[in-house]
Amino acid sequence: MRRHLPFAKGHGTGNDFVIVPDPDGALDLSADLVAALCDRRRGVGGDGVLRVVRTADCPEVAANADAAEWFMDYRNADGSLAQMCGNGARVFARYLVERGLAAGPRVVILTRSGVVTAEVGEDMITVDMPMPEIGGESTAHLSDVELKGTTAFCGNPNLVCAVPEPGVLDLTRAPVLDPAAFPAGANVEFYAPAEPPTAGTDLHVRMRVVERGVGETMSCGSGACAVAAVALRDHGRETGVVSIDVPGGGLTVTLDDGWCRLAGPAVVVADGVVTI
Amino acid sequence: MRRHLPFAKGHGTGNDFVIVPDPDGALDLSADLVAALCDRRRGVGGDGVLRVVRTADCPEVAANADAAEWFMDYRNADGSLAQMCGNGARVFARYLVERGLAAGPRVVILTRSGVVTAEVGEDMITVDMPMPEIGGESTAHLSDVELKGTTAFCGNPNLVCAVPEPGVLDLTRAPVLDPAAFPAGANVEFYAPAEPPTAGTDLHVRMRVVERGVGETMSCGSGACAVAAVALRDHGRETGVVSIDVPGGGLTVTLDDGWCRLAGPAVVVADGVVTI
Repeated sequence: MRRHLPFAKGHGTGNDFVIVPDPDGALDLSADLVAALCDRRRGVGGDGVLRVVRTADCPEVAANADAAEWFMDYRNADGSLAQMCGNGARVFARYLVERGLAAGPRVVILTRSGVVTAEVGEDMITVDMPMPEIGGESTAHLSDVELKGTTAFCGNPNLVCAVPEPGVLDLTRAPVLDPAAFPAGANVEFYAPAEPPTAGTDLHVRMRVVERGVGETMSCGSGACAVAAVALRDHGRETGVVSIDVPGGGLTVTLDDGWCRLAGPAVVVADGVVTI
Repeated sequence: MRRHLPFAKGHGTGNDFVIVPDPDGALDLSADLVAALCDRRRGVGGDGVLRVVRTADCPEVAANADAAEWFMDYRNADGSLAQMCGNGARVFARYLVERGLAAGPRVVILTRSGVVTAEVGEDMITVDMPMPEIGGESTAHLSDVELKGTTAFCGNPNLVCAVPEPGVLDLTRAPVLDPAAFPAGANVEFYAPAEPPTAGTDLHVRMRVVERGVGETMSCGSGACAVAAVALRDHGRETGVVSIDVPGGGLTVTLDDGWCRLAGPAVVVADGVVTI
């Protein structure tokens, strides 16, 4: 039996999402349904699903209903649960304000890694992100070549690998990680310094990313924050403003005393009904 | 200035299309707009665009308005014009009948390679295709390895290469063709025999295809017809029923005395408005 679901589609720097409005929490969003929605040829297509549900109407998080009216129920394209998605949060905030579900410009959103606050501008949307926690060193094997990297937790696990040139890497097959370091997998970022920073930023880097459960994406917000923290550390700093070129555009990450902020464009590009 | 366009999305065996209803021919469908619509992350996403326009209201083909009410203005994902697309025609026919623009089950459609007739069933849609014309031998270079193939014209140029196992080929980079044989490029099919044919079919093969201007797709109707003609010839036949496994599903091609028919499922999966 085919069913009809309203949807929207949005992206932030090419990291794209199927937005599923479900204000009253009536939808049973199974892993199979997520995968079908994210199928780029047979469904709508996206790196993940953002279910828009009132916190009070979602049993998983209803106890936090006082913290934020809306819960961003984010799922990876393969249907697995995800804690946080920085670009997803920026698209989610754009959607809430465009549809009149939040007044803006300041929007508070509940995610699986806590409450985040977004600032919705005309083009740019800024979101507070979990502060990256830099961990130990680990490795990724890519096409049987071992690359060294630094672990960083940004609401989700990341491995940040400095490489001479991210553009030449074959990322069609996922990097193989050390299961002792990442028992549940991780996002893997590959980055290199870019041309000198522009005014108002301290560092400029470019990166590519392979997201857990998705594959290579055009952009990853938490991955960008992980890269910013590691790149600053490699310059002997703990704080600063890092401009980051991702395949899908440009992001800016600001790390200051205990807080992290991700800025970049985010748009809703389509609205409709999917039959699935 | 962003504009709003109604769209639908459909696919036939995973060969997917952005359907743009433009009954009165009011839309200037530039190559840039096609590419933006087909962008899988920033637009709707598809292997191509099917503009649905009344023949009489499309200057390019208005002289043929008596032949068919609807013109399938098909474009490749890169914005280039295309003559014919078998899966596109099946999706186009499904759309016309579902939306009440044609009564069905028999639907006549004008394409750039002439009039085709579709039969719209509950699941299966059959479409008459240009009779494949087998030409001479040529070659494709894939990762610097030369593969021999047979040229076949099916409304568009094809090169059909018999290989031991299509599944192992790296098709992320397009095969390099002989420009003398294909001055405007071609679709390239790679096929191998599959398990014995089921009842009612004479041959069973499996194939993968790299479409000109698109890259690898999950299915290609004219490519399937080209493969069927070459596979039958290799068995000393000119006619027969060939069951073809494509990555996105199953197609059946029937070649008889001077006519060719392509059958398989086709569905419209989403409807909406894109802001682009």
